[in-house]
Amino acid sequence: MEKSAIGIDLGGTNLKGIVMNGAGKYRHLKRIPTEAHKGGQKVLDNIFKLIEHLIKKEGAQDHIIGVGLGTPGFVDHNGVVIGGAENLPGWKGTSVYEAIRAKFNLPAVAGNDVTVTTFAEYKFGAGRGIPNLVCLALGTGIGGGIVADDHLYKGSHGMAGEFGHLIVETNGRQCTCGLKGCVEQYASAPGIVAAAVRFCAEAGPQELTPFVKETLKDPAALTSKTVYEYVLAQDPVALRVHEYACEKLAVAIGIILNAFSPDRVVLGGGVMKAGRIIIDTVLKFVPRYCWPEIAARCSVVAAELGEDAGVLGAGAMVFEELNFHDRP
Amino acid sequence: MEKSAIGIDLGGTNLKGIVMNGAGKYRHLKRIPTEAHKGGQKVLDNIFKLIEHLIKKEGAQDHIIGVGLGTPGFVDHNGVVIGGAENLPGWKGTSVYEAIRAKFNLPAVAGNDVTVTTFAEYKFGAGRGIPNLVCLALGTGIGGGIVADDHLYKGSHGMAGEFGHLIVETNGRQCTCGLKGCVEQYASAPGIVAAAVRFCAEAGPQELTPFVKETLKDPAALTSKTVYEYVLAQDPVALRVHEYACEKLAVAIGIILNAFSPDRVVLGGGVMKAGRIIIDTVLKFVPRYCWPEIAARCSVVAAELGEDAGVLGAGAMVFEELNFHDRP
Repeated sequence: MEKSAIGIDLGGTNLKGIVMNGAGKYRHLKRIPTEAHKGGQKVLDNIFKLIEHLIKKEGAQDHIIGVGLGTPGFVDHNGVVIGGAENLPGWKGTSVYEAIRAKFNLPAVAGNDVTVTTFAEYKFGAGRGIPNLVCLALGTGIGGGIVADDHLYKGSHGMAGEFGHLIVETNGRQCTCGLKGCVEQYASAPGIVAAAVRFCAEAGPQELTPFVKETLKDPAALTSKTVYEYVLAQDPVALRVHEYACEKLAVAIGIILNAFSPDRVVLGGGVMKAGRIIIDTVLKFVPRYCWPEIAARCSVVAAELGEDAGVLGAGAMVFEELNFHDRP
Repeated sequence: MEKSAIGIDLGGTNLKGIVMNGAGKYRHLKRIPTEAHKGGQKVLDNIFKLIEHLIKKEGAQDHIIGVGLGTPGFVDHNGVVIGGAENLPGWKGTSVYEAIRAKFNLPAVAGNDVTVTTFAEYKFGAGRGIPNLVCLALGTGIGGGIVADDHLYKGSHGMAGEFGHLIVETNGRQCTCGLKGCVEQYASAPGIVAAAVRFCAEAGPQELTPFVKETLKDPAALTSKTVYEYVLAQDPVALRVHEYACEKLAVAIGIILNAFSPDRVVLGGGVMKAGRIIIDTVLKFVPRYCWPEIAARCSVVAAELGEDAGVLGAGAMVFEELNFHDRP
């Protein structure tokens, strides 16, 4: 049978799994609850259950070359979760490679969920054929990933691409990480909502736009999706929030460009459902915050893969790291 | 004869060349004037002259596998100087690989001078055996270089590692590059001198320390070397300049750590002649400006190679990029 990999995407709510070939063709997509609240051992048991299910579906295991896992947090090169997975209590310290090897006699590879997603975009999405690529996922937080010279770069302890904590304002807004002025505080979904609430509260009597009125009625109910509905409707206060978030994001992208000189920046995550308008506004600001010769040679585009980027990247990483590059 | 490479270090004043083996053992070190003011063609002619001299010294060319060149500015993957070499008028646009191939029938590889120096530190200096390494050279400006997974990462257009233009203060000091608040404005030799002059001018009557007096007597004569003589003598105003410069540098290093998660940061360049005190003070500030788990796993050390890092890195890059890795 054709050499195949198992790809697993571990999220706070769901575990997803597939079996795929080196070209990204996949089968048996399956979703089960993570049961994160039951602790790290239960999460591992559920991963085992998912792998068992996928092997059973395949009817055989001989052609499975390994298991790839995308997970919140950081995984070191021995496959140990060393931190950063706050939504998975007890997951830190898990020895993923060892556990999967012991249970299934299969090699495993793992990486931070956004790192893995970046690799999926590089192999099958908005980064196809681009040797130097950086991804930012704008969601509840901001994560990132790096492909350098056609190679997934994870950093020494699986922590490369922590772009959410790039400082974009000196003595800026307090971040949960302890730093001040992290881009996550401005351009993640909660960051955008927080700015919107502030901007609406500060809006003068001449600025009681529909957006301001709706926000002030129930600030706690505001979402970045709502903000962007008003942005697309050209509400001036919503547009101001949008410009503010995009400029801060552009500062972070400028930093990344000066440091890496990539060919392309891919923006993904829930916030990017707003689409083209974010790309356009970010592109307006980026040249103000980096070496112009680098900006001129780098494109900024939206991610192409949807929800399945995680499992696809996890599977692709197996072929990449176990050196079965695209071979059948 | 043992496979050897020619390494050339192109500086604004001097051209240096060596012949070396894959282990970094070199011979025939030769220095000639760059004659930068005579234009790009003259610089190229002088590089030819240097290569000819080295081949003549060797007595044969068959065992020379290629020529490596470190140069100010950016070189793309075709070997064309695409910018950033302001001290070499007419050098931009030079097609280095083509010119060397046409003249000597030898393959060439090239890179930014600090990128090349970084590779030397990785192969033979403070970064030996460190797979993920970042270098910053603190001199007239601040340059940088990246080794990722034991591989010299140049970026798409040879522009990776422009760390001097990482923004460390929002709306900070105007940089020559057009941006504001670049770390180069604070922690390069001229940046340190500029801060010293400001701090001395602002010093109150109770603070007329020897350092303040000397600086105010002739501000234009101040050098970063003098600043550090007073730092080592514990002059309180000089110490304040030092802490200020090191904190800004730490912001930049924090950014680099969050983006790359390297094992080690190597600090080099003329400013680092001040030695240990810069490392110690930078280390005090770094954890305030990045993810603590990354900082805890990354060391900051002084460069080990001196002036010959450029030629050594250029030669080593030949073995690296032409795939003669350390083979005799």
